[in-house]
Amino acid sequence: MRLPKHIGIIPDGNRRWAQSKGMSKEMGYEKGINPGLCLFKLCEKVGIKEITYYGFTVDNTKRPREQRIAFTNACIDSVNVISKENASLLVVGNKESKMFPQELNYYTERKQFGTGGIKVNFLINYSWQWDLGQIMTGENMDTRDITNNIASRDVSRVDLVIRWGGRRRLSGFLPVQSAYADFYIIDDYWPDFKEEHFYEALKWYDKQDITLGG
Amino acid sequence: MRLPKHIGIIPDGNRRWAQSKGMSKEMGYEKGINPGLCLFKLCEKVGIKEITYYGFTVDNTKRPREQRIAFTNACIDSVNVISKENASLLVVGNKESKMFPQELNYYTERKQFGTGGIKVNFLINYSWQWDLGQIMTGENMDTRDITNNIASRDVSRVDLVIRWGGRRRLSGFLPVQSAYADFYIIDDYWPDFKEEHFYEALKWYDKQDITLGG
Repeated sequence: MRLPKHIGIIPDGNRRWAQSKGMSKEMGYEKGINPGLCLFKLCEKVGIKEITYYGFTVDNTKRPREQRIAFTNACIDSVNVISKENASLLVVGNKESKMFPQELNYYTERKQFGTGGIKVNFLINYSWQWDLGQIMTGENMDTRDITNNIASRDVSRVDLVIRWGGRRRLSGFLPVQSAYADFYIIDDYWPDFKEEHFYEALKWYDKQDITLGG
Repeated sequence: MRLPKHIGIIPDGNRRWAQSKGMSKEMGYEKGINPGLCLFKLCEKVGIKEITYYGFTVDNTKRPREQRIAFTNACIDSVNVISKENASLLVVGNKESKMFPQELNYYTERKQFGTGGIKVNFLINYSWQWDLGQIMTGENMDTRDITNNIASRDVSRVDLVIRWGGRRRLSGFLPVQSAYADFYIIDDYWPDFKEEHFYEALKWYDKQDITLGG
């Protein structure tokens, strides 16, 4: 089976899940932590080399305060949970903003845990404008290759994006790295994550003809 | 009905269509010209404000010579056909390269035909690296807004991307403008374009919850 090297995860539908259970919207986020760990373990098992989780974005921080606090806490917990595994962890996002949780500052340079293992990236207070805007600062103008000049330059090309919650869009997820990615959409909400979702996505990806635009 | 303002068209499957008819691959491209005009007329009828056609890319020019000639000619014809309509036409692509057809030079600044009408953009010898690479030249560094600094800055945000030929990826199509776009995939090949494809895509788009990342 031809496996994707790098999988992008858009864990959408936490609020809709909470509402469908009669809970208030912000209650859905903490139910997304365990799925993130399950997915990590599946990736480890089958041999995926890199995972990027879409944590929260600068756009998201404009939501009501109780939601912002809930998704920020769920993201902090998610990163901490993965730091107990064999993973090489990096948090990517605008840490100059007060919306960036200080608890995650330590991870804004890649840190190895256990045997290292899978490269895991979390996008936290991320925005594509911020990511590409780094090009304009000219700090890394040693090359004509824009992929070396964006803020997320330590995140590799994404082969497969899996999105939960039925929406068929990137919502600003790593536009440069996703230029050639294949998109797989799962209608179930992220808190309803099942192992089958992951295996179905891999089975589908195996059938795709990868051309990298050629 | 809530309509997309700007539709991106990825007219894929020309070669597979030709092969399915027992023809050689490059024969498929000229069968894509008429669908492009049909689609333009449908957009005009329902009131779409802007269309971007994915013509060919720098990546594509690495294909066998006979294919390159065939898709280049089909693109030239497609632009000329739309120039007979009420359209405000722009060709966006790397015109410094010898792969850029000289016949389309005239359109590399937006030109109005008839009453103007719909804004139509053709991506010709386009590449996302080239598009974003323009930021690094610093020629338009009058602002912190990267959308004003890319080569395709005269192309608006895309609301809906429709791709024919079954593949679920952007293949380098306007990464900045497509950051929030909804993706609709049609399994039929582009030469088998039907009006229903367009109407089904609009019906689907009308049901999407547009948040622009919020």
